[in-house]
Amino acid sequence: MENWRTKIVNSDEEHIWFCGYDIRSLMKTAGFVETIFLLHRGRLPEMGERKLLDAILVASADHGPGAPSCATARLAASGNRQSVSAAVAAGLLAIGDPHGGVGVGCMELIAAGVQIARNENVSLGQAAMRAVEDAISHAKRLPGFGHCKHTKDPRVEVLFKMAEEQKIAGDGVAFVRALEAAIRERIKPLPINVDGALGAVLYDLGFPPIAGILIFIVGRVAGLTAEVAEEYLWEKPMRIRIPVQYQGTPPRSME
Amino acid sequence: MENWRTKIVNSDEEHIWFCGYDIRSLMKTAGFVETIFLLHRGRLPEMGERKLLDAILVASADHGPGAPSCATARLAASGNRQSVSAAVAAGLLAIGDPHGGVGVGCMELIAAGVQIARNENVSLGQAAMRAVEDAISHAKRLPGFGHCKHTKDPRVEVLFKMAEEQKIAGDGVAFVRALEAAIRERIKPLPINVDGALGAVLYDLGFPPIAGILIFIVGRVAGLTAEVAEEYLWEKPMRIRIPVQYQGTPPRSME
Amino acid sequence: MENWRTKIVNSDEEHIWFCGYDIRSLMKTAGFVETIFLLHRGRLPEMGERKLLDAILVASADHGPGAPSCATARLAASGNRQSVSAAVAAGLLAIGDPHGGVGVGCMELIAAGVQIARNENVSLGQAAMRAVEDAISHAKRLPGFGHCKHTKDPRVEVLFKMAEEQKIAGDGVAFVRALEAAIRERIKPLPINVDGALGAVLYDLGFPPIAGILIFIVGRVAGLTAEVAEEYLWEKPMRIRIPVQYQGTPPRSME
Amino acid sequence: MENWRTKIVNSDEEHIWFCGYDIRSLMKTAGFVETIFLLHRGRLPEMGERKLLDAILVASADHGPGAPSCATARLAASGNRQSVSAAVAAGLLAIGDPHGGVGVGCMELIAAGVQIARNENVSLGQAAMRAVEDAISHAKRLPGFGHCKHTKDPRVEVLFKMAEEQKIAGDGVAFVRALEAAIRERIKPLPINVDGALGAVLYDLGFPPIAGILIFIVGRVAGLTAEVAEEYLWEKPMRIRIPVQYQGTPPRSME
Repeated sequence: MENWRTKIVNSDEEHIWFCGYDIRSLMKTAGFVETIFLLHRGRLPEMGERKLLDAILVASADHGPGAPSCATARLAASGNRQSVSAAVAAGLLAIGDPHGGVGVGCMELIAAGVQIARNENVSLGQAAMRAVEDAISHAKRLPGFGHCKHTKDPRVEVLFKMAEEQKIAGDGVAFVRALEAAIRERIKPLPINVDGALGAVLYDLGFPPIAGILIFIVGRVAGLTAEVAEEYLWEKPMRIRIPVQYQGTPPRSME
Repeated sequence: MENWRTKIVNSDEEHIWFCGYDIRSLMKTAGFVETIFLLHRGRLPEMGERKLLDAILVASADHGPGAPSCATARLAASGNRQSVSAAVAAGLLAIGDPHGGVGVGCMELIAAGVQIARNENVSLGQAAMRAVEDAISHAKRLPGFGHCKHTKDPRVEVLFKMAEEQKIAGDGVAFVRALEAAIRERIKPLPINVDGALGAVLYDLGFPPIAGILIFIVGRVAGLTAEVAEEYLWEKPMRIRIPVQYQGTPPRSME
Repeated sequence: MENWRTKIVNSDEEHIWFCGYDIRSLMKTAGFVETIFLLHRGRLPEMGERKLLDAILVASADHGPGAPSCATARLAASGNRQSVSAAVAAGLLAIGDPHGGVGVGCMELIAAGVQIARNENVSLGQAAMRAVEDAISHAKRLPGFGHCKHTKDPRVEVLFKMAEEQKIAGDGVAFVRALEAAIRERIKPLPINVDGALGAVLYDLGFPPIAGILIFIVGRVAGLTAEVAEEYLWEKPMRIRIPVQYQGTPPRSME
Repeated sequence: MENWRTKIVNSDEEHIWFCGYDIRSLMKTAGFVETIFLLHRGRLPEMGERKLLDAILVASADHGPGAPSCATARLAASGNRQSVSAAVAAGLLAIGDPHGGVGVGCMELIAAGVQIARNENVSLGQAAMRAVEDAISHAKRLPGFGHCKHTKDPRVEVLFKMAEEQKIAGDGVAFVRALEAAIRERIKPLPINVDGALGAVLYDLGFPPIAGILIFIVGRVAGLTAEVAEEYLWEKPMRIRIPVQYQGTPPRSME
């Protein structure tokens, strides 16, 4: 079998290095958020970058037992008490488009808009208007706008304000704000949701689109593990009853 | 890297063999149930063995969207529309002890009871009584008895009757029936549930205890895939709302 | 919480019905393959339909420990001996596009081609040629052609021949064969692979495209469970060593 | 359906609270590691507690593509490019006893030893010796000792030294050190591994045994997501070939 290659971790009998840094130094003088940045980007973050990533992870950490990921983890834990990792994994499997994976689509939309603005020498506002019109004509959703629960998501303004204070805000935040304005003008006022804010800030931090879901996952696992622990330690197995209504063929015989 | 070894499948550019049989013959003159038996046991089943395994798989196939495995799969499909295999996998993760994995415990209990009956030259009935008394004194549940939904599980009698007609019924069925009698005498009447029946018959078919969950999984995936298809084709993403009541610390400030 | 609705399973204290049929009848006089068809299609199969679905399931059941799904399941079982369902689920998670999910793309391609042939009153051969030219001009792969291992896949001819003998073969098989001819003419000879054959036959059996992966999963779980059992019963935990070569930044200090 | 209850998260249209704290405050003035502690323990950590948890998470974050969890995630990503959450979830499914779940067993061993020391008024050293003798007589492994790769794990001493500097080290660290001495005396010198150190420190931080795997999972997901990103962005689908040797029945015919 051919060697697998990697740029992330190396180790020998007495050492482990993450992207070249000795794990002992990372444990003693850096920390988990710096390490997450390092593993994904190959370098340690500046102070402002660390602050933003930290806030993104807190924002993603949990949204209660009713969030699809948490509910799925708790249901799995209700049926299977043999493996906590199985329950946490089940929670992850509920994450994708539309739950938690919207950031990917949002980051791709930003990248395409910024590209158009550069190549065709138009403003981000014009590029955003074009994206909105394209979405209207193809009856597509614009990822990052609207939320089933929050009319005004408390996490969005914190992320945007921090991105500006820390001089991280750039084309990503600008383009998402331009989209918001274009949507208000051409469709109706729709708030930027947490996925949109997360996508904008991760874009400005230099992450690739795939990070729009991967960083959400890193944050959400903090909550999933806590939800699974609560289910194991507080609830009985098999407690969950789903109300079901049968709407199919009535009883029939096989002939 | 060392070779991985296997006794199950071999192939070259133009052939695939399952335990020595050419896959083309299996497709043409055997069938899926025979192949399941073959992959797990290394030989093709006799007619009676195939009939019993077939019935066990039908009995395990589904129990409606409210069963923990099905509900978990549908919740995952509700949040993540990017991967049907993720939704089916989430459903599997709800399977274990206590849901769907009880057959393993039941088969181990049978194996231990049969062992005692042989080694100590007592009847299966005496060994069963000892197992019940042991469970009482250690406050343990006896796997395979009682059901939250069915007072009389329709699948149990079909399996036992078929096992007798096909001359498959042996120590497994006898020991589970002896347990049922001992439980009635020492505790209260508790019906044999489908896990108990499945464990008894798989034991008499010569499967190892781990098959108590693996064969259930093979059957249940038929239903999980159908449930996931129904969710994808009939329901909107993010439709599921779980009612939650917060019982924790009220709002507080950080100082 | 609103009721979940379903057309698949109904039950009361003493009964379970699959699409209206009593589970006891299905266990006694139908069988697992009929039940798989029933759960997915809402009706029992004709004899020829059952034979084809049976052969498809056998064809999908296993491909040895080196297949991505099987290797993933065995690796998970090597690290985690607490949950067999976790190992089987891990195997499912390796299934999607490109492994095992190709049937979906193939069925969508067939559906689009048949649509064009009907709407524009051209032959299936002409529609196939157009699909091939479209794939060439957009540098897309045609799902269902070429195989990394088999120059001539033993499963393909069996499926196609059986589909013809059983009078199941229709537009699906015809369009895939037309694609094969068009690819030979415009690109180079590329064999129809098992995903293509499975997609063609499932299309002719009337299944929706999503079944291209779901039915593969039902078949493959037979093998995944056998592979996991072999890993548990024959191999030690943590046996698997992956050879890795580090190609990243050399050791560096944190200042 | 009955309400699900929780003490972790509450929210309304404009707020989200984690254990009573407004998520905006947590994002602005606390951070991800504090939030992980909060979600699992219901209160914010002291400075020393945060430092230790931070170091534990860094220590768990990754161990290269050859670690069972990382290898499983990369294999899943190699076969299925449709869902990154599926690949990360597959990685989690390789975590349990013996990989990454050893901390649970270690914390239970500590809890039992401390209980014995208190109840029977013996020293921790005597309780540890008893645990070692019990393991010898039942041929059981002692969780937390020995490592297949590191003769001297670089993470262990950092964790223990930090636990002492921060005045966190208590019965957990003391008991594991006593076990190490007893093992050296009664069996042979076996180093404390990272699972043992993690279990000892989490015990002294007041976490329940289940956290021995859950906190490891939170840390490891940082690495799993980075490994999956590297696989997606650097490697082709289906690149992984596992060398397999067939050792089963040779070709045979069905009659």
